[in-house]
Amino acid sequence: MKIPPVKGTRDFYPPDMAVRNWVIDGWKRVSVRNGFEEYDGPMFEYLKMFQIKSGDEIVEQLFSLQDRGGRDLALRPEITPTLARMVNQRINSLPKPIKWFSVPRLFRAERPQKGRLREFFQWNIDIIGVESGIGKCLADAEVIFTTVDYLRQIGLTSKDIKVKISNRELLADYLRSLGIPEDKLESVYIVLDKKNKLPSETFEQMLGEQVQDKKTVNKIIDFMTVDSMPQLEEIVQLKSESDEYSPYLDIKMVLDYLDTMGVGDFCIYDPSIVRGLAYYTGIVFEVHDVAGELRAICGGGRYDNLLRDFGGPAISASGMGMGDRVLEILLEEKGLLGEQVPKKQLEYFVVYLGDFVKEVWQVVEKLRSMEYSTNFSYKVGGPSKQLKEASAQKAKKCIIIGDEELEQNKISVKDMATGEQELKDYDKFFAELK
Amino acid sequence: MKIPPVKGTRDFYPPDMAVRNWVIDGWKRVSVRNGFEEYDGPMFEYLKMFQIKSGDEIVEQLFSLQDRGGRDLALRPEITPTLARMVNQRINSLPKPIKWFSVPRLFRAERPQKGRLREFFQWNIDIIGVESGIGKCLADAEVIFTTVDYLRQIGLTSKDIKVKISNRELLADYLRSLGIPEDKLESVYIVLDKKNKLPSETFEQMLGEQVQDKKTVNKIIDFMTVDSMPQLEEIVQLKSESDEYSPYLDIKMVLDYLDTMGVGDFCIYDPSIVRGLAYYTGIVFEVHDVAGELRAICGGGRYDNLLRDFGGPAISASGMGMGDRVLEILLEEKGLLGEQVPKKQLEYFVVYLGDFVKEVWQVVEKLRSMEYSTNFSYKVGGPSKQLKEASAQKAKKCIIIGDEELEQNKISVKDMATGEQELKDYDKFFAELK
Repeated sequence: MKIPPVKGTRDFYPPDMAVRNWVIDGWKRVSVRNGFEEYDGPMFEYLKMFQIKSGDEIVEQLFSLQDRGGRDLALRPEITPTLARMVNQRINSLPKPIKWFSVPRLFRAERPQKGRLREFFQWNIDIIGVESGIGKCLADAEVIFTTVDYLRQIGLTSKDIKVKISNRELLADYLRSLGIPEDKLESVYIVLDKKNKLPSETFEQMLGEQVQDKKTVNKIIDFMTVDSMPQLEEIVQLKSESDEYSPYLDIKMVLDYLDTMGVGDFCIYDPSIVRGLAYYTGIVFEVHDVAGELRAICGGGRYDNLLRDFGGPAISASGMGMGDRVLEILLEEKGLLGEQVPKKQLEYFVVYLGDFVKEVWQVVEKLRSMEYSTNFSYKVGGPSKQLKEASAQKAKKCIIIGDEELEQNKISVKDMATGEQELKDYDKFFAELK
Repeated sequence: MKIPPVKGTRDFYPPDMAVRNWVIDGWKRVSVRNGFEEYDGPMFEYLKMFQIKSGDEIVEQLFSLQDRGGRDLALRPEITPTLARMVNQRINSLPKPIKWFSVPRLFRAERPQKGRLREFFQWNIDIIGVESGIGKCLADAEVIFTTVDYLRQIGLTSKDIKVKISNRELLADYLRSLGIPEDKLESVYIVLDKKNKLPSETFEQMLGEQVQDKKTVNKIIDFMTVDSMPQLEEIVQLKSESDEYSPYLDIKMVLDYLDTMGVGDFCIYDPSIVRGLAYYTGIVFEVHDVAGELRAICGGGRYDNLLRDFGGPAISASGMGMGDRVLEILLEEKGLLGEQVPKKQLEYFVVYLGDFVKEVWQVVEKLRSMEYSTNFSYKVGGPSKQLKEASAQKAKKCIIIGDEELEQNKISVKDMATGEQELKDYDKFFAELK
């Protein structure tokens, strides 16, 4: 009986696994050198957890299941609610700031499409518990720096990708200054978030439905198309009473820091980055391919209310999430996977002439104990068949053992790339390997 | 609103994550040096997949869910059905033998108890597609060797654990020779598998229910309590017409190989290892703590029919599965975790005197780009507060930057263990680090 895999999931054969491991190992290494510590939570949580953060609409995008007591659970579509739960559980004993990363496997019950699968991996970094204003800017810059630090390390340049940075608070202040009432802000955000995905006429029309006044609509559109900091400064100063306009200074400071850290060429101010989610409260950002052909590679920002929403204290937080799927599509398009992902390679293949002898096991065990990946044939065929098997397994070297060699306490070592074969003293060979 | 985690799942705070990573990295490293390649499959499969291997009883031990089309899925309770599916999908293009490993996260809807959680990790190694008789013995020995190679590497000795090895075929032949009919074998196995978990009287009674004849019951019990190869040889030769009694020779050969590879002291023949699962066809084994206080640390064996049952060809297979939970309990009891699991340690913490200056970012970035994990304070406090934070983060060294140092192009480096502080030339310091 043949059964297919479930649609939207992936089988990781060894070559696919090599790509996955290379991506995840890179995420981990960059996280560690940037001072983050790894955590993880369960694959499923009570369904309520995800409703708290994303509302009831999330439910139909979740794989739901039940425990034995009939309680509703769901496979995690993101790890942030788990992070909030875990931090709240130990809020008093954890030293602040909490600087954590994770590479959870996540699930979405959506229809699979390009760059979106039902099962995927996501790199998450978060900095929690930074209280001062300048500290928050430092933390926001750290999150963005760490993100770029990974992307540039795998070979992407500022010609390939851009970090588009904006500030939800700045936008909110600007909208307020235009007279948009507080309870309208959320629905205006939702429209603004669609700006880059809609034809401009449709966008204007949708915005007009939220904001009746034509002049105000135009002002918002002007604000949303600002593409430099001097231009922003002009608009902001028009609207602001003093130079102490903090949301503007925040974004300026974050951009300055990123410049100082050497990743300024990756970063631009882009007010069209709104991020639909209600929970962002300050700096928000997305990384996009410059060609604009793919979904966002990653996104994140400041979310200072989430821990409180999960029953904890009002404590600040800033974070980023990057899925593996869009990233891999981009890297494949740029030809950056082939060179960098380690190829399968076996260090040694031990070949025996004549019957299988105990000395084969001994040589194999010796090599393995020295961390050399080593195989031999289970097929009990002649030496040429064994050498073929060694080639198929991409062995770098073969060790050939026969009665004659054993009597003289010698082994033959064959280099599989050059074909050269050398007779070596058994003990000397192993002594030299050490 | 505070929501607890689901019972039987684990939160991995950074210290727990360090243990998990240490265990999994060890599994991976030992697999690779023993010539295995890594694979993985989806977290869920069609429910039918698991019924094929384990029958309908498995369903109530599974977390089941549905896709959008209402098809029944289940979270994987083991990876072997996925392995069979994946190998069958590419049976013609995969070079044999297939020597694969995986460290899947698995799920069981059972009530949590000591050593058994609802969510856990399991190391799997499998060798598929070895056809000759001697080849199969070599593969069986490889699987057992690799298992022990890991366990001894993490510090367990033959005084802590034993690999108990048996042969299902040998048992079947013996039962047949006593006149047990073919269709009775499975239900006898199920009773025999319980031998070590039941009081001997209850065991005898249950066996009597399957095998009416009292004399036969006693013979089976004698066979099941053999504890040496010479003793086994006596019984087996009584029952066998010639010396060519292959299931006996198979287990003898496997034990000899393990001896040659230097792990003979871990391995014993133990006929009480039956393994309840219907699908084992030859050598079976379990690793137990010598004290006998815990569940089996791992188990495995030969299963030559599984790929055929999943719609593939009749192709041989031998494998092992080791969960993380029992292993960790044993290692904790033996005091082997504390020493070996890497502790959190930060290489550098950069302290600034006075205001936060751009040079801090530059030093931090420089250190990180050289793979040194580096942090600094977001708190904008005085130097003594920053040094305290560095201590809390277990920093090895602090780099102290002030206006005076910067003017002289110098930095102070403080060793946090000794408290010694040294003024160094900025450029020289970094040149020496490289």
